[in-house]
Amino acid sequence: MNRAGFDVSPDPSDIGREIYELIAELYPICRSITGNGFRQTMDVLRRYVPLQIHEVPSGTQVFDWTVPREWNIRDAYVKDSRGRRVIDFQRCNLHIVSYSVPMDTVMSLHDLRPHLHTLPDRPEWIPYKTSYYEENWGFCLSHQDYLDLEDGNYEVFIDSSLERGSLTYGEFYLRGTEEAEILISCHACHPSLCNDNLSGVGLAALLAREIGKAAHRYSYRFLFVPGTIGAITWLARNEDRTPNIKHGVVLSGLGDSGEITYKKSRRGDAEIDRAAVHVLQQSGLAYGITDFDPYGYDERQYCSPGFNLPVGSLSRTPYGTYPEYHTSADNLDFVKPESLGESFSRLSEMLQVLECNRRYVNVNPKCEPQLGRRGLYSSIGESERALLWVLNLSDGSHDLLDIAERSGLAFASIQEATARLLDSRLLRLVENAH
Amino acid sequence: MNRAGFDVSPDPSDIGREIYELIAELYPICRSITGNGFRQTMDVLRRYVPLQIHEVPSGTQVFDWTVPREWNIRDAYVKDSRGRRVIDFQRCNLHIVSYSVPMDTVMSLHDLRPHLHTLPDRPEWIPYKTSYYEENWGFCLSHQDYLDLEDGNYEVFIDSSLERGSLTYGEFYLRGTEEAEILISCHACHPSLCNDNLSGVGLAALLAREIGKAAHRYSYRFLFVPGTIGAITWLARNEDRTPNIKHGVVLSGLGDSGEITYKKSRRGDAEIDRAAVHVLQQSGLAYGITDFDPYGYDERQYCSPGFNLPVGSLSRTPYGTYPEYHTSADNLDFVKPESLGESFSRLSEMLQVLECNRRYVNVNPKCEPQLGRRGLYSSIGESERALLWVLNLSDGSHDLLDIAERSGLAFASIQEATARLLDSRLLRLVENAH
Amino acid sequence: MNRAGFDVSPDPSDIGREIYELIAELYPICRSITGNGFRQTMDVLRRYVPLQIHEVPSGTQVFDWTVPREWNIRDAYVKDSRGRRVIDFQRCNLHIVSYSVPMDTVMSLHDLRPHLHTLPDRPEWIPYKTSYYEENWGFCLSHQDYLDLEDGNYEVFIDSSLERGSLTYGEFYLRGTEEAEILISCHACHPSLCNDNLSGVGLAALLAREIGKAAHRYSYRFLFVPGTIGAITWLARNEDRTPNIKHGVVLSGLGDSGEITYKKSRRGDAEIDRAAVHVLQQSGLAYGITDFDPYGYDERQYCSPGFNLPVGSLSRTPYGTYPEYHTSADNLDFVKPESLGESFSRLSEMLQVLECNRRYVNVNPKCEPQLGRRGLYSSIGESERALLWVLNLSDGSHDLLDIAERSGLAFASIQEATARLLDSRLLRLVENAH
Repeated sequence: MNRAGFDVSPDPSDIGREIYELIAELYPICRSITGNGFRQTMDVLRRYVPLQIHEVPSGTQVFDWTVPREWNIRDAYVKDSRGRRVIDFQRCNLHIVSYSVPMDTVMSLHDLRPHLHTLPDRPEWIPYKTSYYEENWGFCLSHQDYLDLEDGNYEVFIDSSLERGSLTYGEFYLRGTEEAEILISCHACHPSLCNDNLSGVGLAALLAREIGKAAHRYSYRFLFVPGTIGAITWLARNEDRTPNIKHGVVLSGLGDSGEITYKKSRRGDAEIDRAAVHVLQQSGLAYGITDFDPYGYDERQYCSPGFNLPVGSLSRTPYGTYPEYHTSADNLDFVKPESLGESFSRLSEMLQVLECNRRYVNVNPKCEPQLGRRGLYSSIGESERALLWVLNLSDGSHDLLDIAERSGLAFASIQEATARLLDSRLLRLVENAH
Repeated sequence: MNRAGFDVSPDPSDIGREIYELIAELYPICRSITGNGFRQTMDVLRRYVPLQIHEVPSGTQVFDWTVPREWNIRDAYVKDSRGRRVIDFQRCNLHIVSYSVPMDTVMSLHDLRPHLHTLPDRPEWIPYKTSYYEENWGFCLSHQDYLDLEDGNYEVFIDSSLERGSLTYGEFYLRGTEEAEILISCHACHPSLCNDNLSGVGLAALLAREIGKAAHRYSYRFLFVPGTIGAITWLARNEDRTPNIKHGVVLSGLGDSGEITYKKSRRGDAEIDRAAVHVLQQSGLAYGITDFDPYGYDERQYCSPGFNLPVGSLSRTPYGTYPEYHTSADNLDFVKPESLGESFSRLSEMLQVLECNRRYVNVNPKCEPQLGRRGLYSSIGESERALLWVLNLSDGSHDLLDIAERSGLAFASIQEATARLLDSRLLRLVENAH
Repeated sequence: MNRAGFDVSPDPSDIGREIYELIAELYPICRSITGNGFRQTMDVLRRYVPLQIHEVPSGTQVFDWTVPREWNIRDAYVKDSRGRRVIDFQRCNLHIVSYSVPMDTVMSLHDLRPHLHTLPDRPEWIPYKTSYYEENWGFCLSHQDYLDLEDGNYEVFIDSSLERGSLTYGEFYLRGTEEAEILISCHACHPSLCNDNLSGVGLAALLAREIGKAAHRYSYRFLFVPGTIGAITWLARNEDRTPNIKHGVVLSGLGDSGEITYKKSRRGDAEIDRAAVHVLQQSGLAYGITDFDPYGYDERQYCSPGFNLPVGSLSRTPYGTYPEYHTSADNLDFVKPESLGESFSRLSEMLQVLECNRRYVNVNPKCEPQLGRRGLYSSIGESERALLWVLNLSDGSHDLLDIAERSGLAFASIQEATARLLDSRLLRLVENAH
């Protein structure tokens, strides 16, 4: 650590607006776990960071799973007897169940009904449905439109393809001064959904760009993957690299107006877990901490027992607990630039803790050194208390985060005191290792 | 474990009624720590389970104690000057202080008074008193009868014997597939007292019968002993067998209407302690958990520092905290079939946890296995969450009870998920050892 | 331990009065971190205990510090143009900033002002100020007197000396039956301040006298030192003795009317910490426990990482949290004989725990011994429960304080039970070591 440390702190309202604009650009694209929508999304992100794009052929074995066939869709609709498109993929890509097989037929409303999905409790919203691993087809629509359907025959048309191709993912690796790395992962496989999907994608892309401009000790790896199968594919192809992952966080749901929530890694006391808890406690804002649960986003894979990586998950309102989740109401109105900006700030503070968390030893451990003659001590305020805490606990067995936790002072105060004590040659760095 | 597991779950109201009837049959017998009343009690129990009856001669040294002389009583009364039996053992066996020496004399009320015991605060109840290790005699009576005694001379007659004989206890050993055993112990040395004594005796006898009908992994040892001296005698004669005792519970006070209370073993975190806490937490009913205390029933001996066995104690309202305790009011009205049935159910659920608590290893530990193609995964409900928890924590260092505790799910759900995963060959049993 | 144990329990109101009288005698003396006021204070204390007086020459290097020049003061005043002493050291020694350099000059009020210190919020009180390590001079006065100063010239006169001399401290060592020692330390460098300074000095002196009369296992070391530099000087000159310090406590602020507060050592779970918590919990009075903080009195030095001694700190209202702190209002009205007496009692109870806290082994560990035939057991009250707890936990891994903590019984009850069990040869002392 030098005095400047790691500094990724753009103005939160600027960065929040920039993330929002990226989300708005990505919103109309019809993504799925494979296919051209995903590739198009990566193309947009490459304007921000030089992503490496990987294509993994259908049929590739990845642990217990097989990379599925590639799905692409051009058009889909249901037409009534008068030829009106009563359900139309062109209007909203949520109308089609993801991975629907091609279809060109006419059927009665009675036969069509089992293929229609609605939300009776939220009659204006369109649900989001998928059928990745079971050959099927279907349409999603608002319950009020569903109720308007009249008896009669309907033309069902789905111009999709489900063929051997490949699974795509984007990866961005930023070498730091150390090989030890921090993993930032998000899923990018949902179509027009803003909070669950695009907020994580947008925040990760802008964070990657910003870290690229700053000095950093850790190496960083950003993954933009299809959920589940993408994380599994990356792990299967990079198993030998996983020991380098010292900390990690899965991002999603970072744009809604709820309070920030950190879900701990399976380990529960990993350094990233402690850093996150500390930053949220010190933020002065309401927040949530939840214990690890094997249900969730891709932390499920990173924290599977064969890997047990120190990877937590950051969001605002937790997945599945807000009504807009996986519906058309998770739209551009649901995410806010301010929320995105604040999420960015909190995450970069957590990274700041990890970057600067070192162990020092007080070179003058017997009694206090005379701070006064070094100009380090006048009246007692928070900064003098921080000096005393750092001196007292820097015995080689406490790192700066330990000192922040025990003293109740903000990590930034502890870090500043450490810099002043280093300047006065009262501390020595103990070790660089993890 | 097989899918069926351990299954001892008769209908609670049936088994409660059956225990109650056994209590009613045993109620009139005058038991003490030795003598024919204890033997008669064992004879009744042998109709339920083939108890082995042990007779240990008076004078036998058992650790720091000596097996006392055998006490038997045939009749006892106090007659007033008009020849009326104002205190009469034939009406209630609590009237005689247990271990009273023979007596045939006449004395003034003034001289008799020091030998009379009453409960001034509960003037209608007769207290229960003993004088096992000090030669003495006395009568217990209600305070209202005591106040009616008129001055004058009284005939005091006690037709008892205190002679070399033996101490009796009953033992029932049920071999399981393993030598490791679960100890169920109760004291059976109190005369006409229902909750403190007979509820434990009755529940243990019926439990022994039911387990005898079921498949079980553990061996079970049921002890029906006189309190303190009986447990000490068993331990002294079976010291070499105690390492087989992996779990144990002392039973008493299981028929009153209070909430179930589990008192932890001296270890505090023994598997039986954790199983009991889990079952009571999941029961949805009010319950109590108390820490170990060296005052109590025979867990005092099992948990003495030279043994420190993992033996807790199960009751409803704790001993000594209800006014009926050790009085004639602890009668057939005080215990309820429903309470007895519920106590039976909770205890057999605890045994179920112990029987089925094993350690498995996820044979597919890197990322989640694809549950969908095995028909194990549809929508997410409690049973799917249980599957994910078992897969995630089955790394060889967590047993099923650990998983139930960490997930907050019922052990039965975890057990069911485990069975399904075993059927799909996704788990392997790690070890059979303790 | 013998049955009598350690017994230092003079009547609290007598000892409280005696401490108060000593404080009253010491109050007028103008003390500083060096000089004759400190020596005079030691002379008074030598009437109570045969203190050894150490003189350490100015310029001596003590770790990172240097013993400063010796400061003495004979007179100081500010005279107005009419020759009236508007600030007069003879009236109150707080008027002079400690370590003020000699001065004999005339200056305008305008030039004088930066050298005058007041408390605008407490206009009747005089603050206490020092300037030990920076050559300076100044006067303290009440804000109301300050406001009365009229424009014009003032004569400023300080008849002080700041010269090579020595730093003085007093030490009293009481050999016990063991070399292991308990450190009692207080600072004695403040002028007319009663609670912060003299309450600790007076209590330590009287405690030393009382322990000198009693049997005690531990050796005791009492230090009366100038704050910070004195403790550092002692540690620098006695580094080889510090491994003998098994427990310690820094005393100050023990006479006000607030509740007793114990501040834990840096270790947090040292035996002195546990003893203090136990005694305060059992006292039945309100109390405070605070975690270690590197800001405070001389525990800062004893708990520096190079020593990390098990030294806590005892006070009533914590330093700096009451308005009278470091002002003329910390006077003879602010400290109360009753508070001093109660502080003395609590501290001697803590020492009692340390003196008597041993590890015993139950020589009869298999089942309970028969207490009845040894006259140790009649009905169950606190003393019988204590017997059972001591027998149950005396397995060689628990000391008496562990037993008191786990049982929730007072240490005195555990100690009394231990004495009775020793008399009955049911216990054996395990070890004498620390």
